[in-house]
Amino acid sequence: MNPSFVLRAVNDVVFEDRPKPELKDPYDVLVHVAQTGICGSDATNRSGTITAIGSRVANLEPGDRVALEPGVPCRRCEFCRKGKYHLCLDLIFAATPPHDGTLARYYVNASDFCYRIPDSNDPGGGRDGRTCQRRGGDREDRGFRGAPDGGVAKAGGAGKIIGVDVVGERLELAREEYGVDGTFMPPKPEEGKDSLEHAEAVSRLIKEEFGLGDGADVVLECSGAEACVQMGVYTLKSGGTMVQAGMGKEVVNFPITTVCTRGLVVKGSIRYLAGCYPAAIDLIAKGKVGVRKLITNRFKFEQSEEAFQLVKEGRPDVFKVMIEGVQ
Amino acid sequence: MNPSFVLRAVNDVVFEDRPKPELKDPYDVLVHVAQTGICGSDATNRSGTITAIGSRVANLEPGDRVALEPGVPCRRCEFCRKGKYHLCLDLIFAATPPHDGTLARYYVNASDFCYRIPDSNDPGGGRDGRTCQRRGGDREDRGFRGAPDGGVAKAGGAGKIIGVDVVGERLELAREEYGVDGTFMPPKPEEGKDSLEHAEAVSRLIKEEFGLGDGADVVLECSGAEACVQMGVYTLKSGGTMVQAGMGKEVVNFPITTVCTRGLVVKGSIRYLAGCYPAAIDLIAKGKVGVRKLITNRFKFEQSEEAFQLVKEGRPDVFKVMIEGVQ
Amino acid sequence: MNPSFVLRAVNDVVFEDRPKPELKDPYDVLVHVAQTGICGSDATNRSGTITAIGSRVANLEPGDRVALEPGVPCRRCEFCRKGKYHLCLDLIFAATPPHDGTLARYYVNASDFCYRIPDSNDPGGGRDGRTCQRRGGDREDRGFRGAPDGGVAKAGGAGKIIGVDVVGERLELAREEYGVDGTFMPPKPEEGKDSLEHAEAVSRLIKEEFGLGDGADVVLECSGAEACVQMGVYTLKSGGTMVQAGMGKEVVNFPITTVCTRGLVVKGSIRYLAGCYPAAIDLIAKGKVGVRKLITNRFKFEQSEEAFQLVKEGRPDVFKVMIEGVQ
Amino acid sequence: MNPSFVLRAVNDVVFEDRPKPELKDPYDVLVHVAQTGICGSDATNRSGTITAIGSRVANLEPGDRVALEPGVPCRRCEFCRKGKYHLCLDLIFAATPPHDGTLARYYVNASDFCYRIPDSNDPGGGRDGRTCQRRGGDREDRGFRGAPDGGVAKAGGAGKIIGVDVVGERLELAREEYGVDGTFMPPKPEEGKDSLEHAEAVSRLIKEEFGLGDGADVVLECSGAEACVQMGVYTLKSGGTMVQAGMGKEVVNFPITTVCTRGLVVKGSIRYLAGCYPAAIDLIAKGKVGVRKLITNRFKFEQSEEAFQLVKEGRPDVFKVMIEGVQ
Repeated sequence: MNPSFVLRAVNDVVFEDRPKPELKDPYDVLVHVAQTGICGSDATNRSGTITAIGSRVANLEPGDRVALEPGVPCRRCEFCRKGKYHLCLDLIFAATPPHDGTLARYYVNASDFCYRIPDSNDPGGGRDGRTCQRRGGDREDRGFRGAPDGGVAKAGGAGKIIGVDVVGERLELAREEYGVDGTFMPPKPEEGKDSLEHAEAVSRLIKEEFGLGDGADVVLECSGAEACVQMGVYTLKSGGTMVQAGMGKEVVNFPITTVCTRGLVVKGSIRYLAGCYPAAIDLIAKGKVGVRKLITNRFKFEQSEEAFQLVKEGRPDVFKVMIEGVQ
Repeated sequence: MNPSFVLRAVNDVVFEDRPKPELKDPYDVLVHVAQTGICGSDATNRSGTITAIGSRVANLEPGDRVALEPGVPCRRCEFCRKGKYHLCLDLIFAATPPHDGTLARYYVNASDFCYRIPDSNDPGGGRDGRTCQRRGGDREDRGFRGAPDGGVAKAGGAGKIIGVDVVGERLELAREEYGVDGTFMPPKPEEGKDSLEHAEAVSRLIKEEFGLGDGADVVLECSGAEACVQMGVYTLKSGGTMVQAGMGKEVVNFPITTVCTRGLVVKGSIRYLAGCYPAAIDLIAKGKVGVRKLITNRFKFEQSEEAFQLVKEGRPDVFKVMIEGVQ
Repeated sequence: MNPSFVLRAVNDVVFEDRPKPELKDPYDVLVHVAQTGICGSDATNRSGTITAIGSRVANLEPGDRVALEPGVPCRRCEFCRKGKYHLCLDLIFAATPPHDGTLARYYVNASDFCYRIPDSNDPGGGRDGRTCQRRGGDREDRGFRGAPDGGVAKAGGAGKIIGVDVVGERLELAREEYGVDGTFMPPKPEEGKDSLEHAEAVSRLIKEEFGLGDGADVVLECSGAEACVQMGVYTLKSGGTMVQAGMGKEVVNFPITTVCTRGLVVKGSIRYLAGCYPAAIDLIAKGKVGVRKLITNRFKFEQSEEAFQLVKEGRPDVFKVMIEGVQ
Repeated sequence: MNPSFVLRAVNDVVFEDRPKPELKDPYDVLVHVAQTGICGSDATNRSGTITAIGSRVANLEPGDRVALEPGVPCRRCEFCRKGKYHLCLDLIFAATPPHDGTLARYYVNASDFCYRIPDSNDPGGGRDGRTCQRRGGDREDRGFRGAPDGGVAKAGGAGKIIGVDVVGERLELAREEYGVDGTFMPPKPEEGKDSLEHAEAVSRLIKEEFGLGDGADVVLECSGAEACVQMGVYTLKSGGTMVQAGMGKEVVNFPITTVCTRGLVVKGSIRYLAGCYPAAIDLIAKGKVGVRKLITNRFKFEQSEEAFQLVKEGRPDVFKVMIEGVQ
């Protein structure tokens, strides 16, 4: 059978014993879930072991350890056909009702969205969540994502990487685990000071302290906080690009004229792009980007509710929380 | 001598007879000014006839009729060297003190920023400003720029072009002169209605009325008005691009979360890119984009002050105002 | 039943009455074939009317007239997922054994590779093949493809388009139907002259005759002939791009050093890209690119063998040959 | 005075004492030459110390140690203005008659093509050639360039890098100094075997030995040898890119049909792109790519002729040869 922890509606979760799921398609695989990583209500970092494969599956075999991409797109819409499946309007996203997630013993997934984990990923023999978000889109925007993104930028050859955060633990992580070239904790605005003036002043500070000259080539905004979006724009050099990955308020006060006069580019980022998962696994397998230190808390399957409770509290020392699969 | 109309400071203009300017560089040319087009304080659409050339000028000869690009970049900074000279921090922009503009009999310019006007541009024998802004950056944002931009998009093969404006005359121009596929005048928001809700509702109207399905591939925002920036974002389909060309308020309420969830790209546009001027002249020479109807008012050189006065009034029936050169 | 004209092996074709094909997938549609366009052994320009749809088909209804893309990709490989389905290694290409083509009364196709034809495509009420190859890959390389490609380039805003061919009829077509700006028939090489010298000399002639200065920005090579590939390279300006669409000899004498010293880009083109079919239908529907004049010969279904025979002869006055569906 | 070693014509070199050169432009600088690196007739890797600056030089001061880009473009042509100054037709390339090179005590250069060398580049206090060719264009194509290019690819985040060469010393260098993931020495073709078949067979070997699956994403061809160009094409996966940097025979037997059927891209590379020099200096300064091991032989200024003689011999153990400046 298939013991499952199910989100029936907001704030309504339950343990159930469900029937073992069946392959619906010759390209499906059955996965015995090993670990599920959670952030807020999402449960999107998943790994497991293949236990059965459909008749047309060629890339995987029973026994393979795999990481699972959280969404499976429709494969037929304009976006899917043009290679932008992250924009697919019919994407089936795990753990988003009515679709179950991997908080169960077994899970069925499309084989081409399961990626084999090389043995080198886990020399010590342990079992943990091995995926790394190359581009994320956490609803909760706890911001810890910025640290590993710094590591990915470094692995990709970025010249000088500065981590900015208001939480010291994260800056330490960025520096020590991900090798960013500098970190910066923005000062609080003075009482009564205009928030945009403050953002611009902080940007000047960052540019001066780290010798960025006219500004940064790229800003990766992972918090979604209004002040950070503003600082991001002001910190860019002319012609620079801000990738807006964090999500917070729907609407922010935005220095659009600066975007014009400096010829900036602002790119909204949602989820990940085709190719991000295998690239992330490769970075981890080669030891270029570590993810173990992102995992601050681990729970047994039976403690799932407790795990979500911890995430909800939003403590600065809690980064990624993992829930072990059913033994 | 060189009769000149000079902006000495804000609101301080004067007619002077200045010495005829000299070539400062072997690549310079001397231009007898024919026409100067103005918008607000700018005087950036200029044409004339070459009367002298420097010793190393190879692309032009005395007698050639030319259009003048308004800025001459430093040629040495990082931006210039990478082909983004519109971002040059040392760009010398005509008619921006202390640099004189073309409201004079003679004007000296770098030869590679003067573009020969083919004879076909003016079969009727008249002399008028023949340049067309392919990408503009009017400080005043009168918005008439949107209409010819529609024509340029059409010439470039855009599938379906919808012009949006609050001034009927401009929509008519877009339709009749520039062949856009449809025009739309947004309704005013209901009293007390949230402005973002209004923008989103108008976007839905546009998509429905013109069968845009999930939205537009590209929005060219030429007004800088806050409501229009918001509508632009909401009107885009997932993965779409908004070119922000208009400038108004420094800071606007901006739906940044929509930019993320739909994976949009927002590109700030300032001035024009390398290659825009010759491309624009070619479009006009081939009759693909007309500019005559943009010129609503013409003045003699002696009436320069009057011309600027008219522009300042901001009347909806005044598009481009031309000042003739000294006879 | 389903009368069919089947290629069993090379030079072994036969008429058979086959069972009416069934939908294999909820996204499939059944098409009553209207027209099939052929070139050599390919039969890749197909249109018809939808007679049945699968349970999950949302984009089409019975009665819709459609054009069919000739290949349906696997949707799962690296290429498909990155939006390059034309490179899919498991692409099922119609009329390539063991896959039947549309020379039959009925044909089953994936619904998302059938494109509705707007009524405007056929004001006269006739029924003909309405697709236009935006990028082709004819095995036979008869070269007539260059002419409509010129029209597509024109619709896309290309500045000056020169058609080059050794067959006068095609040059005439390019000029009269597709509005290219000039045509050129290369002279034959002098006896004993080195072929590369000849190619370079012809390129100089083309550049001089059409005022191309240092050369063309883009060369679209549609013939695959060795001399034309060489001319293509020599005709490009520095930094230019050659799209190699034609296929002839496997291996050619190729001026690779010129590719280096001028910083050229050579792009191999196979079939078409995601989005080409709908774009082509849109160009035809709007009257920007005509295709009727490409059709020089029409046959009834019963005359299929005769139609292929004609194509094999390779006559210069035969462009596209159409075979009508079973009545 | 300015002792100089001058190439007057092919095979006609002489030592002369020339007048100390003067700044010709307010943006010029005077450089006391420290080292000149040579390959064949080129002398294109140069460094020195600033001894005088023009009136408008802002980026450098006397005493600064600098690396010199070998070419200074016209800054005015279409290529320069679009950021492709490596294609400038009026590029003044050092050591190409009538332009002198840096084999002299003093050399005048445009300040914006001199790049300050950080102190970290040379903690030991020695003086050596500190530039690194990020993209090269050696006429001689000795092929040693491939090894450091492997290091640059690694620094840029390439997944798996395989070095291919026929000289064991270079493969060793690639492995030990530049950290490529594997090296391969192609077998010689069997007597009488078709060269293209051989190239294709070797490509299969490479793909199998290194687990490249359908092939490499990118091939950087640095030799210019016909067999290597062919192998490069065959080794690419569908949609892959070959950068043709090496130059050998003007014309090669080239598998153009494979370029088409696999949708490949072939990019000719000449010299370097805007931004390559500062990027290379940064990589060296950070210790990501070393260049010391490339320097196999050093000569005094007075031994210049001997140095060129050594390079001409083409010995496999001679990589980069450096000539010290006048003391």
